[in-house]
Amino acid sequence: MKLGIVIFPSKKLQDFVNSYRKRYDPHYALVPPHITLKSAFDADESDLKTLTSKLEEIAKKHQPFSFHLSKVKTFHPLNNVIYLKVDPSEALTTLNKDLYGEGMIGGEPEYAFVPHLTIGQKLSNLEHDDVYNSLQMLAIDHEETTDRFHLLYQLENGSWTVYETFLLGKG
Amino acid sequence: MKLGIVIFPSKKLQDFVNSYRKRYDPHYALVPPHITLKSAFDADESDLKTLTSKLEEIAKKHQPFSFHLSKVKTFHPLNNVIYLKVDPSEALTTLNKDLYGEGMIGGEPEYAFVPHLTIGQKLSNLEHDDVYNSLQMLAIDHEETTDRFHLLYQLENGSWTVYETFLLGKG
Repeated sequence: MKLGIVIFPSKKLQDFVNSYRKRYDPHYALVPPHITLKSAFDADESDLKTLTSKLEEIAKKHQPFSFHLSKVKTFHPLNNVIYLKVDPSEALTTLNKDLYGEGMIGGEPEYAFVPHLTIGQKLSNLEHDDVYNSLQMLAIDHEETTDRFHLLYQLENGSWTVYETFLLGKG
Repeated sequence: MKLGIVIFPSKKLQDFVNSYRKRYDPHYALVPPHITLKSAFDADESDLKTLTSKLEEIAKKHQPFSFHLSKVKTFHPLNNVIYLKVDPSEALTTLNKDLYGEGMIGGEPEYAFVPHLTIGQKLSNLEHDDVYNSLQMLAIDHEETTDRFHLLYQLENGSWTVYETFLLGKG
């Protein structure tokens, strides 16, 4: 099965992001808006027990933290993903590092960690440029706190179900 | 905000149910297949702390349990929901009762508790009869175990995000 680890931001921020995803993100219906902490990786159902106890350990040693969104950016020309940039922070970076740490299933990260909330993807070049140019005019200055992350698995139809929540700083 | 409490069955069962929901359930993209333990209820974000500590208590005093699916049924003529019947059990009934127990937010249940997995809804009468008749021929005899339930909240677009997982029998 395919697993992934994410942060769901506040309902308010999810609603805001969805108002764009609805038009610009074909994955809109597959998963709520999220910050990916560990990209999709393969595992057997029999790995879940070891993995979740590992994730409990990791959650316990991190504390709730705040993150800040500052602007709309794009991964173009790597790919046509338009996103809200989450400003990198010690808290996010060490959490991400731990989720790829020793003994963790899922191998090495494919890309450098660029925390973000996707608002559009799989756009044609023309559409990408158009949408990106208009969204860049948005004034973004949002800060919020998170105290949890979620382990998800993917269903056959491509959608994601939550397996378990992990509370930061909790035993 | 609107909250709900559900069990997500195994990935295998979710995939099976989705193969029908895809065609017959307009809520297909809004939430993964689930057994509702407590129907949608209103709460403020400020209620979440009290609610989750209450749910922790409830989860702790219940143990993982197995449930059995025996047949395709319908709520017609009450409404045109076609579902996989989850055979009632002591475990399910007491869990449901506790989630509506004293001090729990959300008021009284609107209907008697009929544990089920929806496979189709909002069908016209004609379509309902047609689909129900053909699905009744399915041989269903499935048993599986669950060890958790999830608290969800609804976004503006009608989709549901998981707030927290509660592990049965865990502290």
